Amino acid sequence: MQAEIITIGDELLIGQVVDTNSAFMAQQLNSVGVEVERVVSVHDDAEQIAQALDDALTRADIVITTGGLGPTKDDITKHVLCNYFHTRLVPDADVEANIRRIYADRPQVLNRLTETQWLVPENCRVLQNRVGSAPLMYWHLDDGRQVFCLPGVPYEMEIAIREQILPVIKSQISNLKFQINHRTILVSGIPESSLAIVLEDWENALPEGLHLAYLPKDGTIRLRLSGYGVPTELVEQEKAKLMTLVREWFVAEEDKPLEVLVGERLKALGKTISTAESCTGGTLASMLARHPGSSQFYWGSVVSYDNSVKANVLGVNKQDLQTYGAVSEQVVRQMADGVRRLCGTDYAIATSGIAGPTGGTADKPVGTVWIAWATPQGTTAECFHLGSLREQVIARTCSKALIGLLHRLA
Amino acid sequence: MQAEIITIGDELLIGQVVDTNSAFMAQQLNSVGVEVERVVSVHDDAEQIAQALDDALTRADIVITTGGLGPTKDDITKHVLCNYFHTRLVPDADVEANIRRIYADRPQVLNRLTETQWLVPENCRVLQNRVGSAPLMYWHLDDGRQVFCLPGVPYEMEIAIREQILPVIKSQISNLKFQINHRTILVSGIPESSLAIVLEDWENALPEGLHLAYLPKDGTIRLRLSGYGVPTELVEQEKAKLMTLVREWFVAEEDKPLEVLVGERLKALGKTISTAESCTGGTLASMLARHPGSSQFYWGSVVSYDNSVKANVLGVNKQDLQTYGAVSEQVVRQMADGVRRLCGTDYAIATSGIAGPTGGTADKPVGTVWIAWATPQGTTAECFHLGSLREQVIARTCSKALIGLLHRLA
Repeated sequence: MQAEIITIGDELLIGQVVDTNSAFMAQQLNSVGVEVERVVSVHDDAEQIAQALDDALTRADIVITTGGLGPTKDDITKHVLCNYFHTRLVPDADVEANIRRIYADRPQVLNRLTETQWLVPENCRVLQNRVGSAPLMYWHLDDGRQVFCLPGVPYEMEIAIREQILPVIKSQISNLKFQINHRTILVSGIPESSLAIVLEDWENALPEGLHLAYLPKDGTIRLRLSGYGVPTELVEQEKAKLMTLVREWFVAEEDKPLEVLVGERLKALGKTISTAESCTGGTLASMLARHPGSSQFYWGSVVSYDNSVKANVLGVNKQDLQTYGAVSEQVVRQMADGVRRLCGTDYAIATSGIAGPTGGTADKPVGTVWIAWATPQGTTAECFHLGSLREQVIARTCSKALIGLLHRLA
Repeated sequence: MQAEIITIGDELLIGQVVDTNSAFMAQQLNSVGVEVERVVSVHDDAEQIAQALDDALTRADIVITTGGLGPTKDDITKHVLCNYFHTRLVPDADVEANIRRIYADRPQVLNRLTETQWLVPENCRVLQNRVGSAPLMYWHLDDGRQVFCLPGVPYEMEIAIREQILPVIKSQISNLKFQINHRTILVSGIPESSLAIVLEDWENALPEGLHLAYLPKDGTIRLRLSGYGVPTELVEQEKAKLMTLVREWFVAEEDKPLEVLVGERLKALGKTISTAESCTGGTLASMLARHPGSSQFYWGSVVSYDNSVKANVLGVNKQDLQTYGAVSEQVVRQMADGVRRLCGTDYAIATSGIAGPTGGTADKPVGTVWIAWATPQGTTAECFHLGSLREQVIARTCSKALIGLLHRLA
């Protein structure tokens, strides 16, 4: 089964909003054996939407659209689909009841524009949107092809896909013999092209239907081994060979964010962590706190952006700050020890670096970063050079800090 | 001038990577008067890439591709373009010199795979990639249409667009009479459909070429007024009318992130800020620290995820924590006062809430959030109910906190 995704909205094409919906839908569709062949973004424009639908239906079994279902004048997707499927809008009592339930505690939201939300094309099937006013609509064509029409608000779309759309699609997939299998291995500490040479012979000998991709990100490389329509055992077998080849640079076997791997490890050990951040400015903290259940292992952070906070809150020696500078082994170690003591955690990470664009010197150019790890076994620190772009320096520092901790938790 | 963007890479279509490149390119192209008509994402597949190029060239003056230019086997874009434009790969001395410069301090990266990076299609024009090994290539067809081929790594693409591609495109735009003008007004505190009713008469009377869009996000709505091929004065005139209509809910007139607006205001006043975060877990800190120059006004934060950190670091009264709970007016006010004192800043924001999915009670369901603002004029706090999804609660809390501060800085 092949799918195409059409995301609809002027905001996508003037760059005001990044399309995160497609990646989520692709992951979910892959998980039930449906491949996404193409993603197309078009304007809130009747002709463009109809053209994109026409094109997609010549190639795909499943077409999913997102966006353009709001109550305001710029949203036209429902009207375009009405024309496209030669039908008219009619009120739907279930949708009305659902919308009244959602806004029960906010009656001021119900007005004559919201009321247009319970009009649906007469010949479509309707599913309820648990968290928003736009109904989920779909058409099942005579030849088996299907068109699903979802809202563009990410969390509404996500809940719709998980709870309503995937079950419909799954019920139609009679067998999973053409399964798609992805396995990801995370490595760090080797350049992409050097790794490719290490893997070259094995990669060239991969059986048909198996494919390797390299995904570099923030100083790490995710190696993704994909099997299309081949037995799971074959994918596992080749993955085992790959694991042996990359042992030296291996970080993790799962395609999970580094902070999730760290959290799982800490939870398994019953240990806690805190962070003291200068150049990363709270990014490590927000990564650790982002996921449900993080309060079990993450206790707190001090973002010591200004030197006064390093000294007064974390207890870094003022003389050392002056002698060695904030970006130094001496200071970053004291930051890690300070926050570990302050928060009473088992582990602590500290970062201090020059994220740029200004602040670099000949001695310590932009991208110079010190990271310290305080553990029950003692405190260690390392210096890195992580590029010259602010965003990149921050992201790579977080990667290095979390990988360093994973190694110390092993 | 109309453009289409083709993003290439299996990772986009299995949902492993979100395509952030298109939004950036669309913004940049808009800024020089080029409209993006469509974005298409395809696999690393020769036939699909060629088909997407064919399609795009029937519609657009400018086609930009990103991705598939790495040295590894899965990257095939350069070979596909070679076939497409009936040419062969030849070594390019300038590209070689550029790559050797980039890797001067990392000679181990130069190997026989990296060396394939200085092969380029013989009939294309080449521009240098200042920060990566993939050369920037473009073709100028006889009828004036152009195809630009850029790497997919976001920061390489961004620098290429800013420094190399936009100057080429700009030099060809003889006049800007068909200018695109976007004006954005940020409002908060009114539901989208209610706002649409307030604006209905004005919106229906908008002159041809002018268009309004509603972009709800994290509890705010950005109203985007766009003028296509109409005089700038007309756009300004309608924007002034819009401003009058939304005065009551007005937050800001510029399409900048809230934390940038806060930073600009603080810098102008010569004032400083710190944050004490529980449910937002450092997200506010990382937002404030993300932008260059933030050390001028942002001094530090305490992420007090665990109650022990609230008491021991921020000095929150332990009895109050027990009596009122962490999510309470009493505690959040003490958090704000505590971090303001600790960091010695003029202003401080504190957040404490139940982000979910667990931790809610009948009294304080998931989504209950207290925010406090400590200012030289005193400390105030407000309670909000911000939905039931963790990510949403965190993002909306940050919006409310920053908007509340903006009002207090006005």
